[in-house]
Parts: sequence; structure tokens; C-alpha cells
Amino acid sequence: MDTGDVFDPNCPTRVVLDRIGDKWSVLVLLCLADGPMRFTRLRTRIGGVTPKVLTQTLRSMEQDGLVTREVFAEVPPRVEYTLTELGRSLHDPVSVVASWAERNVGEMLRCREKFS
Amino acid sequence: MDTGDVFDPNCPTRVVLDRIGDKWSVLVLLCLADGPMRFTRLRTRIGGVTPKVLTQTLRSMEQDGLVTREVFAEVPPRVEYTLTELGRSLHDPVSVVASWAERNVGEMLRCREKFS
Repeated sequence: MDTGDVFDPNCPTRVVLDRIGDKWSVLVLLCLADGPMRFTRLRTRIGGVTPKVLTQTLRSMEQDGLVTREVFAEVPPRVEYTLTELGRSLHDPVSVVASWAERNVGEMLRCREKFS
Repeated sequence: MDTGDVFDPNCPTRVVLDRIGDKWSVLVLLCLADGPMRFTRLRTRIGGVTPKVLTQTLRSMEQDGLVTREVFAEVPPRVEYTLTELGRSLHDPVSVVASWAERNVGEMLRCREKFS
């Protein structure tokens, strides 16, 4: 199977949608667009993410073929994360959604206030 | 505050990102792009969603100003959901991500198999 259908409940595209819809994955993707990055740098750049959650996010993304993890034999060992080609292809779609969120967060908050 | 910053942990854009990243919200948004729809029709079209979860999703989206809910005084009463202007503006960004998922689900599944 090479093309999915989001409207088919049995299609794994929905699982993919869940994973790429995850906030932390989006932020990692946007960060790594600037080039390879170490764990500590990613953590500082993203902010508000716990080491545990960042580790899980990176591992999921590695599993999904979106990032690669490279260990350099240095002392202390250096570990770098890089976007794969697949990961890079997801950058533009995801950054369009993130920009929409940044542009419309004010409007959404006003709607919520009116609603409650 | 009218413009957010996804990299600021204190910015509500992250909450927005979580909400619009939700798989069911994405599917509702794509459905309603074709025009107003009743609950039952939405449920059939999306498939695999429980009435409870669809109700919660629609209520969240109404609260966030993405959809409106209109009740028509008929017997039995007709309830229709329609995208707001804000909701319509989110359609294109979200459909780009959904198309990416449909196109790349095969590749992602192959990566997962290799990884395990």
C-alpha cells in the first residue's frame, strides 16, 4: 500500500496523522530544519519539554523515518539529530500549520472567552 | 496578544497546535469543507469515530470558533455544522498535511518495519 485514504478507518494514514499532529514532533521538525542539532540544544530551543518526552518524541520520529540519530565517538560522546529526506518533505506542510496557529491564536482565544 | 510564538513555552499557540493537530478535528474540517453537514452524515463520512468522541470534537471546534452549530426547528430537529471563516482558513494548511500523510504512509510504515 503506497497511497492512503484518511477517510478509511482501516487505513494507517490516521496513525500517521496522529503522530505528525503531535505538538512536540512539530517543534522538533521546525528546529531541525536549521540543521543537525544535539539533544541539549534541541531541549533549550524548544523549551518546556521534559527530557523524557523529548527522548520519546525523537525515538518515535526516528522509528517513523523522519530523523536520524548519529553518535560521534568523542569524549563526552556527541549525539546529533538530523532530518531525513522524508522529514524535510514534511517541514513545509507542518510550518504552514504552525504559522496559521501563530497568526490565529488571538482569534481562537477570543472565541473561547465568548463561548464560556 | 495577536501573534504567537510556537517556541515560547508560555505562549498559548502550543495549545492551539495540540487542538488543530488532533486527528478527528482534521477529518471534521476536511468534511465540512464540502458544505454544512448533519451529525449523522459526518459520523458516517468520517467512519471509525464514536458518537461521544465526535460530539466532543465538534464542541471543542465550536468553542475554538472553527465551526458553528445550528439547530433548525423541524420534527425531528435538524442540527447542522458549518465551518466558520476561521475554520475555512485552516482548511488549506490542514489538507496539505493530510495529503502528505496519504502520500507518505507507505514509506513511514516501511521505516517502522526496518526499525523494529
